[in-house]
Amino acid sequence: MKKHNFSAGPCILPQPVLQQAAAAVTNFDNLDLSLIEISHRDKSFVAVMDEAVALVKELLNVPAGYSVVFLQGGASLQFCMVPFNFLKEGGKSVYLETGTWATNARKESELFGETIIAASSEDKNFSYIPKGYEIPADADYFHCTSNNTIFGTQMKAFPKSPVPVICDMSSDIFSRTINVADFDVIYAGAQKNMGPAGATLAIVKDSFLNNSGRKIPTMLNYETHIKKESMFNTPPVFAVYVSMLNLRWLKENGGVAAIEKVNQAKADLLYNEIDRNPLFKGSAAVEDRSNMNPTFLLTDESKKEKFDAMWKAAGISGINGHRSVGGYRASIYNALPLSSVQVLVDVMKELGKG
Amino acid sequence: MKKHNFSAGPCILPQPVLQQAAAAVTNFDNLDLSLIEISHRDKSFVAVMDEAVALVKELLNVPAGYSVVFLQGGASLQFCMVPFNFLKEGGKSVYLETGTWATNARKESELFGETIIAASSEDKNFSYIPKGYEIPADADYFHCTSNNTIFGTQMKAFPKSPVPVICDMSSDIFSRTINVADFDVIYAGAQKNMGPAGATLAIVKDSFLNNSGRKIPTMLNYETHIKKESMFNTPPVFAVYVSMLNLRWLKENGGVAAIEKVNQAKADLLYNEIDRNPLFKGSAAVEDRSNMNPTFLLTDESKKEKFDAMWKAAGISGINGHRSVGGYRASIYNALPLSSVQVLVDVMKELGKG
Repeated sequence: MKKHNFSAGPCILPQPVLQQAAAAVTNFDNLDLSLIEISHRDKSFVAVMDEAVALVKELLNVPAGYSVVFLQGGASLQFCMVPFNFLKEGGKSVYLETGTWATNARKESELFGETIIAASSEDKNFSYIPKGYEIPADADYFHCTSNNTIFGTQMKAFPKSPVPVICDMSSDIFSRTINVADFDVIYAGAQKNMGPAGATLAIVKDSFLNNSGRKIPTMLNYETHIKKESMFNTPPVFAVYVSMLNLRWLKENGGVAAIEKVNQAKADLLYNEIDRNPLFKGSAAVEDRSNMNPTFLLTDESKKEKFDAMWKAAGISGINGHRSVGGYRASIYNALPLSSVQVLVDVMKELGKG
Repeated sequence: MKKHNFSAGPCILPQPVLQQAAAAVTNFDNLDLSLIEISHRDKSFVAVMDEAVALVKELLNVPAGYSVVFLQGGASLQFCMVPFNFLKEGGKSVYLETGTWATNARKESELFGETIIAASSEDKNFSYIPKGYEIPADADYFHCTSNNTIFGTQMKAFPKSPVPVICDMSSDIFSRTINVADFDVIYAGAQKNMGPAGATLAIVKDSFLNNSGRKIPTMLNYETHIKKESMFNTPPVFAVYVSMLNLRWLKENGGVAAIEKVNQAKADLLYNEIDRNPLFKGSAAVEDRSNMNPTFLLTDESKKEKFDAMWKAAGISGINGHRSVGGYRASIYNALPLSSVQVLVDVMKELGKG
């Protein structure tokens, strides 16, 4: 039986994508060779990279003047690439602190120079998104995290900023429409809505480059990868290929606007049950609830053993909450069908009856 | 027909490894989930990482006091991690310049401090390995590249060094026995004898860490990854898994000492034909010839069209030389069977007759 996979990441990918990925590992593009044993300079793989970049641009409606690159190292490597490239010597950066990853990003900036926290929700265990804060007009950039996987919160709007905005969209990119022109840099680890772990997407406004005045190690300079079209060194071939397949799948299914509606329907279904069922309560502020990672707690801990047995019996996997929050986290990324959310909701209803 | 894959990297992997990798992409470890859609904290994947690390230690006979980690970014990211971690503020590093990648490594060190070239073979287009050079006893480390993929040369011995030795073994690790204790750091991109592109191996002497006095970005600090057993952030799951399968395959086939004999037999077969056949000549100094990447030229360029047609007809792929050398490069990594080398040699003999 195929599981209902609510994993927080690496996470569910569409079945047709997995089938095509497996086939390419034995014979890619009718070359009688595996995808993973050919040169990355082979025209068959160059076509994959080109299509992956083109699909990102098309699906996110990336305007002219922005470059799209595939990198390695996850969002965590971006945390230091951002200040290397954009925090001037003697300048300052501003971070919105909305969770563990936002904090990690901020700490890397502190290695490079003055780093200001615009606002933090640490006072309530990151269960809400701060609002009404000021962004200093003399900062080099403002950094935020669009969706907080661990705490189940999501920025529903981005602040008007007097300085360039850099956003870590690792866990909600391609899940909702965004206006790329509102950002100078968007980055995302692949392993949520884009593809498997091992690739990292960066979308960078070209005119924002080369302003930090720092000596940047070659591999940490966005320009290195932009100039070589993500082929400065051997790219993570498999992760880029599967990302391309997954973006193709998204396009075939109507693109970001269409999946956003499905994602809203899935979130509504689950949050409605969390709010209706007296055995459950949400752990994030209602107005900031993530449409990717709903987090919730049992109101009666004595039901835990029964609930855990029930969802496991229903073929559900990956809904244990992160240790920082406890309870449950049902990640409902793009590839998770509404029917899987319905299975979970049915189990929750059943627990309420029993 | 399965090709005879002489690609320089990413390169041939054993067929059983490719079959198992493909199977895991649809159903991993009987979880009814794909390898690439489960959490990297899942015990099934933690077991993969543990086995991969254990196999590296066993196959290379890594002594106590060394840590083994799987990273991202390829050898190119190591080029800056090395000086960040090991070149002291105000100190100096020494590099042996034996090719393009050695030069790239040296250039990154120059961003951090004084960097000395112990010797270079650039005067003869890197067609030999310099010998008889001095390594200053007051340097922080000596860096070398064990095998030069582009130019087809290989260090057959490593110099006695008065300072710690750091070696980029990307293109010959696991191909021959080495004494790990002779090195303080060994690193290697996976995409030759270890696995698919997207993972990087580092073997680091623990007592060598924390001596540079620099503020190292978290992701660029070897200690970060050592402390978290290669799970500080999401690892490149697929690349690590396939590397583990490939190392298992190597162990089942007798380990490094056994494959070294096969590799020597393959190299002898090919170099003997290059030397015997007047239509060909080797491009690297005989005593420095690589057992991984034999490079050779036609002595009569008018035969090129015929030779190219013949090897293509024989099912050979990936032997066009790098543009820096021209001619041909037949990479004969661990997974390439002797029978494939025989097919190439037969074509070379046939050309000699025609």
